[in-house]
Amino acid sequence: MHVFAVEGLPEIRAGDDIAALVADQVDLRPDDVVCVASTIVSKAEGRQADLDDYEAGERAHSIAERVGELAGEEKDPRFAQAVIDASEELLIDFPIMLAVTPFGHITVNAGIDRSNLPDADLLLLPESPGASAQALHGQLGSRVVVTDTSGRPFRYGQRGVALGWAGLPAARDWRGEHDREGKELTATVQAVVDELAAAANLVTGEGDGGTPVAVVRDWEFGAHEGSEDLFREKEDDIVRRALAAWEGKT
Amino acid sequence: MHVFAVEGLPEIRAGDDIAALVADQVDLRPDDVVCVASTIVSKAEGRQADLDDYEAGERAHSIAERVGELAGEEKDPRFAQAVIDASEELLIDFPIMLAVTPFGHITVNAGIDRSNLPDADLLLLPESPGASAQALHGQLGSRVVVTDTSGRPFRYGQRGVALGWAGLPAARDWRGEHDREGKELTATVQAVVDELAAAANLVTGEGDGGTPVAVVRDWEFGAHEGSEDLFREKEDDIVRRALAAWEGKT
Repeated sequence: MHVFAVEGLPEIRAGDDIAALVADQVDLRPDDVVCVASTIVSKAEGRQADLDDYEAGERAHSIAERVGELAGEEKDPRFAQAVIDASEELLIDFPIMLAVTPFGHITVNAGIDRSNLPDADLLLLPESPGASAQALHGQLGSRVVVTDTSGRPFRYGQRGVALGWAGLPAARDWRGEHDREGKELTATVQAVVDELAAAANLVTGEGDGGTPVAVVRDWEFGAHEGSEDLFREKEDDIVRRALAAWEGKT
Repeated sequence: MHVFAVEGLPEIRAGDDIAALVADQVDLRPDDVVCVASTIVSKAEGRQADLDDYEAGERAHSIAERVGELAGEEKDPRFAQAVIDASEELLIDFPIMLAVTPFGHITVNAGIDRSNLPDADLLLLPESPGASAQALHGQLGSRVVVTDTSGRPFRYGQRGVALGWAGLPAARDWRGEHDREGKELTATVQAVVDELAAAANLVTGEGDGGTPVAVVRDWEFGAHEGSEDLFREKEDDIVRRALAAWEGKT
């Protein structure tokens, strides 16, 4: 498996045709997995926003006050409002805003980005990364993963994750397969789209030299069952239930 | 970046010299990252155990009863005891045993494996994956990550994670670096050892054709600050605090 960043892409702006720009730089093969950072998908789809677009309501003011007190500096309640508006639900709102996006991704601040923006205060996540991936897949022919970087419980640091995918299943389902001794595997489902996003993030990076697209070449999904489920359902998520109970108590 | 599985390794047994066996199969370079599944590290280190080794105490009996009732089948309380003994703490014990290992990794059943074992009921995680990685690094010269697969909150499926590492930092610390516009990056710390483990897991697999070692070649850490912190401290982990409060209530 070979993983490489696509060099030479211009700064992406609203309305840009990402597929055409990528195809200009690299001869893609149908079984390539093209990993596209959600930031440029959002930029192309016009998901820029300004703080002036938001009028902070009561909850946003309350969040900004509590977080500002903790941080020892004033926080803009309009940003809290932007996060609330981009979320289906906030699992907790203090000391961080841990948001559920409409498409099921759980991340801090609903994934709203405040860096790398030449002409706006904020960049929202794509409205439907699955649909974005499907459109890119249709144009490019290759398999596509729309990626983000996100923190996680239990471990410090961020890692690449998938937000949307097309042309491949989200996961390999090993259930029912057997180990070398003939015992049924206890390992279950391998979230390959997240692992592809993580591999891509190793060669792209976030800073000045950031390259928002990487290609994973010569990787085979293999003869396994596929699963399309990536985002946990509420009732299957013990941590989410615990957070809801905890939030209710504080 | 090139990622490939190391073919031709024999079934690993207690006392085997993994470094020598790997070096027999592949000409390693100093900047290769050798990703070694914790299962074979455990096997070489003699971390096999049998259920008969454990005498179930009161909590283990209680866990087995509750989980057995939920699953509709009898559960062996000695397995619950094995998990308790391998853990510093159980964050919750029902409906799953979510354990903190002595080296800080949080995972279901303390990572105890019940598959792929020719001559024992159970395989415990290495006692200190960091020390194991350091020893392999010393023998091989290359960078080393000891990996596992693990589930996670919010998302279905398992993905590769790092348990120990040597010859490279756990994370790239981007703090203080700047984006294209000269703004300080809001993205912070990139857990590269987890991303390397995820990339390796894409080419190794878990079933009959499983290959427990992969090499990541031509990947550069780059000119960034490094961080050695991977496992969150208790007080920094909102989810862990929420789980503790939830566990206390039920």
